[in-house]
Amino acid sequence: MPFINSKISVKLTEEQEKKIKNRLGKAIALIPGKTESWLMVGFEDDYKLYFKGEACEKIVFVEVSIFGSASKTALNSLTVEICDIYNEELGVPKDKIYVKYSETPNWGWNGSNF
Amino acid sequence: MPFINSKISVKLTEEQEKKIKNRLGKAIALIPGKTESWLMVGFEDDYKLYFKGEACEKIVFVEVSIFGSASKTALNSLTVEICDIYNEELGVPKDKIYVKYSETPNWGWNGSNF
Amino acid sequence: MPFINSKISVKLTEEQEKKIKNRLGKAIALIPGKTESWLMVGFEDDYKLYFKGEACEKIVFVEVSIFGSASKTALNSLTVEICDIYNEELGVPKDKIYVKYSETPNWGWNGSNF
Repeated sequence: MPFINSKISVKLTEEQEKKIKNRLGKAIALIPGKTESWLMVGFEDDYKLYFKGEACEKIVFVEVSIFGSASKTALNSLTVEICDIYNEELGVPKDKIYVKYSETPNWGWNGSNF
Repeated sequence: MPFINSKISVKLTEEQEKKIKNRLGKAIALIPGKTESWLMVGFEDDYKLYFKGEACEKIVFVEVSIFGSASKTALNSLTVEICDIYNEELGVPKDKIYVKYSETPNWGWNGSNF
Repeated sequence: MPFINSKISVKLTEEQEKKIKNRLGKAIALIPGKTESWLMVGFEDDYKLYFKGEACEKIVFVEVSIFGSASKTALNSLTVEICDIYNEELGVPKDKIYVKYSETPNWGWNGSNF
C-alpha cells in the first residue's frame, strides 16, 4: 500500500515517465513486504520548485507514503535507488533531490481500511 | 480542520466536481467533531497515475489530512463513503482507489495554530 | 530539510511567486536549525479549492514538511508569518488559509537519508 508521488521541475516525455515508473516499481521491493502489485505511482512534471532560494533547472521532490512503517535501513536503500533513478533517467543532480517518507497506520482501499 | 485532496486520473466536469465536493462535505461528519464548516477540499484531475504498474483509465488517490486524530472505526467509515462517492460519481472501480490518512498535531489557520 | 508547498486558488505572476518564495525563505528560520539553505519551495497555482463548501475566490493550503520535529511555539510563529505573507502578497483573507505541518523522522537527500 505505498504511493510514490514525484514533483519534477522539468517536463517528462512519455518514455521517461514509463521508465521511471518501471524502476520505481522494482525499487519499492527494497521495503520488506512491499511490491509493485500494491504500488500507486504519480507524476507532476513542469512543477514550480525552488531549492536553496534558487529556481535550478532540475529539482525533484519525491514523497513516499507507506501504510505501516519500515526500518531505517530499508528506507535508506530506497532513497539510494530513487536518487539513482532520477539522476540516471533525467540527469537531476542528487543534491537537488529530496525524498520525504510519510508513514501512516490508516490506509483505505477497495471500500475499507487495512 | 480537515483537508481532503483528490488526485484523479480522469478529467472532471464542473458538475462532477461540485457533486463530489458536496458529498465529501457530508462524509467528513463521519469523523466525530468534523463538519463541512471546517473542511477544505482540493482536486487535481487529469493526473498521471499508475497502479500495479499499469496506467489504468480510472485511478484515484485521496489524501485526508486531519488535525488531531480519529478512531479507526470513524476513519474506516469515511473510507467506505469516499470509495462509494468516486465509484458512483465517476465509475472508478473501488479497487483502484487509495485513501491515505495523515493525522497531525500541528495545524494553522487564520494566523495561529490550533 | 524542510519543504513548503502551497496550493493556491488564484494564478500567480512570476513576481508574486518570487516574492513569496523569498519571504518563505526568511520565515523558515523561525524554526531553530532550519534555514533557506536547506529549504525546498513548491507552488501549485490556479488550484481547485473549496472551503466550507464554497469556491471562494482566494484560498490557500500550505503544507510544511519537516525532517525531525519542532516546538509548538516555533511552528506557531511560522504560521503567523505564512498567513501574513499570503495576506500581504495576494490579499488572501487569513481565515481562508490552512497550514498543515508534517513532521517525519525519515528524509532523503543526495543519495541517503539524514
